[in-house]
Amino acid sequence: MKVSILYSGGKDSSLAAYILRLTGHEVELVTVNFGLLESYRPAKATARRLGFRHRVLKLKNEILDRSCTRIVEDSHPGNGINYIHREALKEVAKVTIAVGDGTRRDDRIPKLSIQEIRSLEDRYGVEYIAPLHGLGYKTINRLTDEILEYRKDLSEKIEKSDYEVEIREFIKRKGYSIDKIFPMEHIQSRVIGFKGDLNG
Amino acid sequence: MKVSILYSGGKDSSLAAYILRLTGHEVELVTVNFGLLESYRPAKATARRLGFRHRVLKLKNEILDRSCTRIVEDSHPGNGINYIHREALKEVAKVTIAVGDGTRRDDRIPKLSIQEIRSLEDRYGVEYIAPLHGLGYKTINRLTDEILEYRKDLSEKIEKSDYEVEIREFIKRKGYSIDKIFPMEHIQSRVIGFKGDLNG
Repeated sequence: MKVSILYSGGKDSSLAAYILRLTGHEVELVTVNFGLLESYRPAKATARRLGFRHRVLKLKNEILDRSCTRIVEDSHPGNGINYIHREALKEVAKVTIAVGDGTRRDDRIPKLSIQEIRSLEDRYGVEYIAPLHGLGYKTINRLTDEILEYRKDLSEKIEKSDYEVEIREFIKRKGYSIDKIFPMEHIQSRVIGFKGDLNG
Repeated sequence: MKVSILYSGGKDSSLAAYILRLTGHEVELVTVNFGLLESYRPAKATARRLGFRHRVLKLKNEILDRSCTRIVEDSHPGNGINYIHREALKEVAKVTIAVGDGTRRDDRIPKLSIQEIRSLEDRYGVEYIAPLHGLGYKTINRLTDEILEYRKDLSEKIEKSDYEVEIREFIKRKGYSIDKIFPMEHIQSRVIGFKGDLNG
């Protein structure tokens, strides 16, 4: 069965896609983009290296606008990121029968509540599949180390395809400072392939 | 890495064990028994058919006693079953580095809260892995149909290895009626092998 999974090019969504494929699904990776930056490119490149089909899901600029307004009001990205994630899941759900999500057990954002998950499944008649919801950080770190080859660097130096890239850009263009909204630079990682592929 | 997963011989714990093995774990299936009945036998037989290592975890009779006292007080099995499940997870956690659990997203009992999961991980230094926590009933039904060969029958006719078998027996021996406590006979299933193995 075909599953379309939201994909940032990061470790978590790569691991989730890998588990979906292992369990017999035909996996399509979907990266959200608002047309502000070509920030989907790193995810597309990683998808190709991992051997997955990939497409860009263009979302309306209004969604980014609404998200950023909320983020500036809150001085915190949580609710705005959650909003984009929910809208993206709905858009994917409209055109497929199964929606994948790489969020993990201990994530706070983006994260759907159990009520939101059931509502998505019922409203769109889809399966919502989150292979990492039963896994803690120790297990996820161990599995990604076993399975994926990735590069760690400071958040700003890594080429990423997550929602944050265009959110930062949008807020900057509006003339707001992003320093108070986003935490200090933190180490992030970018997946560059499967371990076996690079060693073999 | 070795993972010990609580195992009833049913579809859910069989699917969870299968996913754990797919993701590179050395899986051991563990069936709880209180020495009242040899109710672990169906699980042991299924484990062999699926090609997994299996052991019986003997738990103290006091745990069954306390569970059944609660169940009779409540006229409902929920809290008593949860109690046994938690005690079983703790016993497994004492002697391993990763504990598997075949409970699913929409299960109410047995089910650990997120606080209980974190407490188990911290207290015993283990990984707690629940591969079905991110999967709904549609996905689980589809995957078990794809992967497992099983037989459906009325609950009482199926040879089972879940906690309920010895709970029923204990309560009967104490002279209480079990009819009010357990729901009417419902259809259950017993796994008899992997699909490919039987077809091939």
